[in-house]
Amino acid sequence: MSTLNIALAQINPLVGDIDGNTQLIIDEALALANKHDVIVFPELTLTGYPPEDLLLRPSIALRVDRAIQQILDSNISAAVVVGYPKREGGKLFNMAGVLAQGQVLFEYAKQCLPNYQVFDEKRYFEAGSKPGVFQLNGVNLGLSICEDIWDGSPLDQLQSADVHAVLNLNASPFHQEKQAEREALIAARAKKLGAPILYVNQVGGQDELVFDGGSMVATAQGEIVGRTELFKNACLSVELDTATKQVSPQASKSGHPADPLADTYEALVVGVRDYVNKNRFKGVVLGLSGGIDSALTLAIAVDALGKERVEAVMMPFKYTSQLSLDGAEDEARRLGVKYRVIHIEPMYDAFTQALNEAFEGQQKDTTEENIQARSRGVLLMALSNKLGYLVLTTGNKSEMAVGYATLYGDMAGGLDVLKDVPKTQVFALSRYRNTLGEVIPPAVIDRPPSAELAPDQKDEDSLPPYEILDQILELYIEQDESAESIVAKGFDKEQVYRVLRLVDLNEYKRRQAPVGIRISKRAFGRDRRYPITNGWKVGD
Amino acid sequence: MSTLNIALAQINPLVGDIDGNTQLIIDEALALANKHDVIVFPELTLTGYPPEDLLLRPSIALRVDRAIQQILDSNISAAVVVGYPKREGGKLFNMAGVLAQGQVLFEYAKQCLPNYQVFDEKRYFEAGSKPGVFQLNGVNLGLSICEDIWDGSPLDQLQSADVHAVLNLNASPFHQEKQAEREALIAARAKKLGAPILYVNQVGGQDELVFDGGSMVATAQGEIVGRTELFKNACLSVELDTATKQVSPQASKSGHPADPLADTYEALVVGVRDYVNKNRFKGVVLGLSGGIDSALTLAIAVDALGKERVEAVMMPFKYTSQLSLDGAEDEARRLGVKYRVIHIEPMYDAFTQALNEAFEGQQKDTTEENIQARSRGVLLMALSNKLGYLVLTTGNKSEMAVGYATLYGDMAGGLDVLKDVPKTQVFALSRYRNTLGEVIPPAVIDRPPSAELAPDQKDEDSLPPYEILDQILELYIEQDESAESIVAKGFDKEQVYRVLRLVDLNEYKRRQAPVGIRISKRAFGRDRRYPITNGWKVGD
Repeated sequence: MSTLNIALAQINPLVGDIDGNTQLIIDEALALANKHDVIVFPELTLTGYPPEDLLLRPSIALRVDRAIQQILDSNISAAVVVGYPKREGGKLFNMAGVLAQGQVLFEYAKQCLPNYQVFDEKRYFEAGSKPGVFQLNGVNLGLSICEDIWDGSPLDQLQSADVHAVLNLNASPFHQEKQAEREALIAARAKKLGAPILYVNQVGGQDELVFDGGSMVATAQGEIVGRTELFKNACLSVELDTATKQVSPQASKSGHPADPLADTYEALVVGVRDYVNKNRFKGVVLGLSGGIDSALTLAIAVDALGKERVEAVMMPFKYTSQLSLDGAEDEARRLGVKYRVIHIEPMYDAFTQALNEAFEGQQKDTTEENIQARSRGVLLMALSNKLGYLVLTTGNKSEMAVGYATLYGDMAGGLDVLKDVPKTQVFALSRYRNTLGEVIPPAVIDRPPSAELAPDQKDEDSLPPYEILDQILELYIEQDESAESIVAKGFDKEQVYRVLRLVDLNEYKRRQAPVGIRISKRAFGRDRRYPITNGWKVGD
Repeated sequence: MSTLNIALAQINPLVGDIDGNTQLIIDEALALANKHDVIVFPELTLTGYPPEDLLLRPSIALRVDRAIQQILDSNISAAVVVGYPKREGGKLFNMAGVLAQGQVLFEYAKQCLPNYQVFDEKRYFEAGSKPGVFQLNGVNLGLSICEDIWDGSPLDQLQSADVHAVLNLNASPFHQEKQAEREALIAARAKKLGAPILYVNQVGGQDELVFDGGSMVATAQGEIVGRTELFKNACLSVELDTATKQVSPQASKSGHPADPLADTYEALVVGVRDYVNKNRFKGVVLGLSGGIDSALTLAIAVDALGKERVEAVMMPFKYTSQLSLDGAEDEARRLGVKYRVIHIEPMYDAFTQALNEAFEGQQKDTTEENIQARSRGVLLMALSNKLGYLVLTTGNKSEMAVGYATLYGDMAGGLDVLKDVPKTQVFALSRYRNTLGEVIPPAVIDRPPSAELAPDQKDEDSLPPYEILDQILELYIEQDESAESIVAKGFDKEQVYRVLRLVDLNEYKRRQAPVGIRISKRAFGRDRRYPITNGWKVGD
């Protein structure tokens, strides 16, 4: 029996760090080479994904050439399949190269370039047109890159080539339930083609995106028979019987979704960890309000970085309840993080006094609430500046959507962990986290949400109940439904119009918001590009 | 002699406001219809440009259909050529439609879709493939849209059609020297085709972009014989002799560039005016430091909005010099705007005292400087919140590039007027503005730049001289040159590496910066999409 041993290397590259990524590839390949014939890495391995406008730097060609030579010079006994940008005839291609026998044996240019949602590949790349088929040790292998397999047409080109298996290099970011979609697709494509598909994806956080890996192998019969663990560096070894096209993975994890909440929580943990570590922060600092958003953010931060790298600050004002003070302290104590209390009255008083003359004859309004939030923002940023700690912000997706947040106040910070998590999911994730150990005090979960910027304030005084709000927001933001079609589903007309207007109006706040970790099919950020100056009327 | 009278309507639409834009088209068309056979409006007239992700809203089709019907129902006696998004067979096209004789006489789908710089058209549109030729009153007319004419291939399709003239609908944003580029291109294309080209562009500000108009007509011999005034609502009437293909414009402005500084200044004025008015702010408020950036920003604001809609605040600290106090007051007095002085010592003292314990044993550093800047930011935002005034920020492109600015401090505000203006151009623009009336005190122009956040601080203590810095920045940001290639041009190696590292590192600040008005070929914002998490090493 003739076999080909293939390794799918699910690695975590750093965008732009071509030297570092190359070293990672070489180390991994050298470790795997004695037991494998082919080692496959994710899409654009050398640059990491997405490299964005780094792809426009002319010297990227030089750096990529040097990296490829370095891999070739490493005397790796297996074939190495890596991704990189390559310029040919003045055009840039998203390339997969087979490095073997001391040379670039074969190159394949991605044919289907995603240019929707968070993807901008047509900004950089030209589409290839040639089928990806090469021979290795007498075995016909197909090559494809990410979108190629979602689109499908590049696989149709392989129908006549009688390939023994298709290697598919990916940089496919996580969103909720994505792995199930991927598995169904890969299985169906493999079955249609009548050949196994070996799917390898990168892992790790990159700004807004988290890559969850989920590398896998599908049989020619359309069955997923091998998987890596999600969100972790991993390697899947697959033995391909070249006579029968049967694939035998070395190990197989159970199918997904194990638990969508667990996946989402893990995505947030990885997103925080990689943002902090890849940007070389010593740790993080965040404000605890005694509310559920900051409580959950704290738990995620500690799970991501360990308690030694997390500091918490409670910044009370006269509207802060005892429940909040107790809750915040309890959260910090349960998780064992450093905890400070800094009262904001002196700053608030200094600001309002300084503005006394300018504000003469004016009523109190949200201006004074914003001064509270901004005093807290300045304090957190001062701690960040002095200690070299990143400030995590704690605004959830519901708040970011309707602008229930203060620019330069609670929005001041480098990463908004829950930016893509609607409030109702904040509750669900908090309860989920507590099943692993009760770190969020139940009293904090059970209390009614309040910004505590005015006496006895409750979120639901100015917003619809979150169960309603989150449904309206999902229909508008993720499903692109109009006000009238949401109303037709039975929601209150006035409420729907008010919420949608708030979403449109608050683009200016979101444009200055910290990046946040994308977990949905449409997150605020690169994924949703709305004008600030916008005359669109809410309606049909 | 048979003639066709064509009007090029250079209008200022509001993005997303399909109802309002439709009314604008109808009003303009009704006013022009008695003297013209054809009235041509800019690209995507109904939605304004760029509509960004509003194009993904399903109800846009309904709204566009309604708008087209409304124009048809208006009994305009001339043919009206407008642009709009249109879905056909599940694909969205960037369309130009000829509305005449109570019907949509002809539609042309844009063939060349820009997807570089600030443009994302492939995110939304499919490319058309059919040539744009239609007959009106027995005259053969060509239709093309913006990029079509830069690319050129859609014009080649018209070679055999013997068109009498080509109408070209544009949404082409300003950058410095752009009009000269456009004129050279249009002239060359018309000459090659052997037919006149009638070019119409929109005018006005839209977030980062300013559209400068510059509508024009080129003869079949390749001469620009008619132009509108830049930056203004305008109409260019052109008589086309259908026997000879000769075009006679009703009026002709002088050629460009009249004065590149004057154009840039006007772009900034229009950018401020439209951002403020289209977003319905009552006015603007800004901090005056006694430095040249805020002085120039104040002048632009007053030229854009009038002195009654502009307020200035000086927020001194112990490091503020008498020169700054005098300069700021003098600026406000010369321009006649409301002027306040609010000292920041009480806020600064309150913050540093509150942080005393947390900072125990730590040296003073930029943290304390940032507290000054952030105290000012909170004060300005409070004035903004209370008065309904937009805060203008005053950071220039050199500062935004190297991060010489405080997040949530001097970066707090809705629009950064000088964000794309390098410091050396700030000087040039200030001198230019003073030639129209001395509104910026010469002492403010002549003093050495300082942030005054520490005793006797000068910008050049921590940055290279601006004449050097701005050259390095232009080579890196606009020309995409590498550190080594900049060094090879004779710049100091250490300085180049340091500056480029600062640019890369400070992406996180720029990501939270206010939008600013684009005047260069590469501005920070939609035009330059870099990762925050970025392992790119400065070098070759």
